[in-house]
Amino acid sequence: MYNIGVPEYQNFGTPFQTHLTKGGQKMLGAIEAGGTKMVVAIGDDKGNVIKTAEIKTQTPDVTIPKIKEFFEGSDIRAIGIGAFGPVCVDKGSEDYGRIGKTPKPHWVGFSWTEAFKDMNIPIAIDTDVNAAAIGEVIYGNGKGLEDVIYITIGTGIGVGVYSGGRLLHGMLHPEAGHILLPPGKEDDFEGNCPYHKHCFEGLASGPAIKARYGKEPFELIDNEKVWELEADYIGKAIMQYICCYSPRRVILGGGVMHVEKLFSLIREKTREYMNGYINTPELEDMESYITPAGLGGEQGIKGALFLAGREVN
Amino acid sequence: MYNIGVPEYQNFGTPFQTHLTKGGQKMLGAIEAGGTKMVVAIGDDKGNVIKTAEIKTQTPDVTIPKIKEFFEGSDIRAIGIGAFGPVCVDKGSEDYGRIGKTPKPHWVGFSWTEAFKDMNIPIAIDTDVNAAAIGEVIYGNGKGLEDVIYITIGTGIGVGVYSGGRLLHGMLHPEAGHILLPPGKEDDFEGNCPYHKHCFEGLASGPAIKARYGKEPFELIDNEKVWELEADYIGKAIMQYICCYSPRRVILGGGVMHVEKLFSLIREKTREYMNGYINTPELEDMESYITPAGLGGEQGIKGALFLAGREVN
Repeated sequence: MYNIGVPEYQNFGTPFQTHLTKGGQKMLGAIEAGGTKMVVAIGDDKGNVIKTAEIKTQTPDVTIPKIKEFFEGSDIRAIGIGAFGPVCVDKGSEDYGRIGKTPKPHWVGFSWTEAFKDMNIPIAIDTDVNAAAIGEVIYGNGKGLEDVIYITIGTGIGVGVYSGGRLLHGMLHPEAGHILLPPGKEDDFEGNCPYHKHCFEGLASGPAIKARYGKEPFELIDNEKVWELEADYIGKAIMQYICCYSPRRVILGGGVMHVEKLFSLIREKTREYMNGYINTPELEDMESYITPAGLGGEQGIKGALFLAGREVN
Repeated sequence: MYNIGVPEYQNFGTPFQTHLTKGGQKMLGAIEAGGTKMVVAIGDDKGNVIKTAEIKTQTPDVTIPKIKEFFEGSDIRAIGIGAFGPVCVDKGSEDYGRIGKTPKPHWVGFSWTEAFKDMNIPIAIDTDVNAAAIGEVIYGNGKGLEDVIYITIGTGIGVGVYSGGRLLHGMLHPEAGHILLPPGKEDDFEGNCPYHKHCFEGLASGPAIKARYGKEPFELIDNEKVWELEADYIGKAIMQYICCYSPRRVILGGGVMHVEKLFSLIREKTREYMNGYINTPELEDMESYITPAGLGGEQGIKGALFLAGREVN
């Protein structure tokens, strides 16, 4: 076992080695692919991160070689990727790992599986939020549960869905950050999602908060009205996810959720919007039901490691 | 094989025999349990309905003996039930089959499994809409697909979810007819759901239409504005279900969906609300993607037969 503490993601621009790899240990690679940065890691199948780095997301031509350089010489057996969507997550499809129409122009049509084909190891792909969801289920606050949703509220809003002991897919994957919400009565902000205006992401993401008030969320930290409205939207959304997925726990992560006082407000709002319609023991214990991520930001990369491990176990 | 045509559910008040049972055939029982009536059937594991009846939903003390009478002497091997919710669908729970808090007072706490325990055969329970969903997947318009949702729009609104080849459950089961919808700009009806006012059911069920216009839906058949608004709400809801479940097909049933002109309006509205955000081959063929139920009202009872069959196969 490795005792690595919390890797200092913030402080390095180039790959660095925090711990030596153990001889004979099954090493795995992981990529948490975001629109602005890629977090890459080498770890084991116990959720231990051995080595990690951040690589700026530029064009695939620039970024992919840097990722490969990071993995070089590490003898990893598989790579797990939690990627921004839309991405084909259907293992049976010839497009498995291919990115669809996205506002990130250089990445449209890019294929993760093709990009790493020359490494001759299995590549597992899911969405960033599904990777985070499984990370929380295996190692974090969703441990032991078969039905968990992970919601990230930050630059965007996304939902990872673990249902009946499996990550939920379909013709594509959930894009549940884009559910429509009834706007708050006193909110005249029309929403900033380029596709749906006042969807959840368009009303409650970090950039939506900034667009509504003209200030960064952290500058608004003492403005109670801001967080009251934010919690109201999140509560409306969670109410809908409860109706759709009936999760046994709701885990919240992402930059906006660093505002800790949101949690109690969100629990209150969720209860208000459910209005006693569904009665379960889980909903009676809102403190446990709506909970922060347990892995302090590592849920995505640990989930991606787990996805990699599944390929070789 | 039986060739039974379409049973005339409408015309009988007491059980009747449409076809003789075949010797040696594995006979199964099915109950489609609604708030106003129970449809009961005896059939086989090929989806053939042999005998059927409607029984008025009164108190369990009155209704259950009538259902048992219907099954008497039929040598059924299992019973499948598609029941109004909330109902415990967790097979591992000691409450499997027990009805939760419902506005139907005599049924609160009633247990389907206990009620039929004396028959000494397996009882399978799911929600009415999940039963209809699996009916459509096995025998109807969802055939061959692993990800299908079935939406019923009638006295209430409910959604059956078949995802990754399984009916979706969680801490309970989906109650996705109660997702919140942004109200239409010119709609000043506040919704009639006693729990959530302007949820999907509160805005677009048959009783919601009646409450908004003061007339029965069938009296409004030539009023284009009525169906424009109805399709608008249904389109908003389907957009959200696509974001949440990513189904490969959306099947619509229930009384309101007898208004056939709704289908093309709904497809249009769904496309409008998706606004090109998700691009899949399925969504390009809206005619196939959003489709009526293929079993003409029998999806629930055939699905319940299938659930029964799974218990003995």
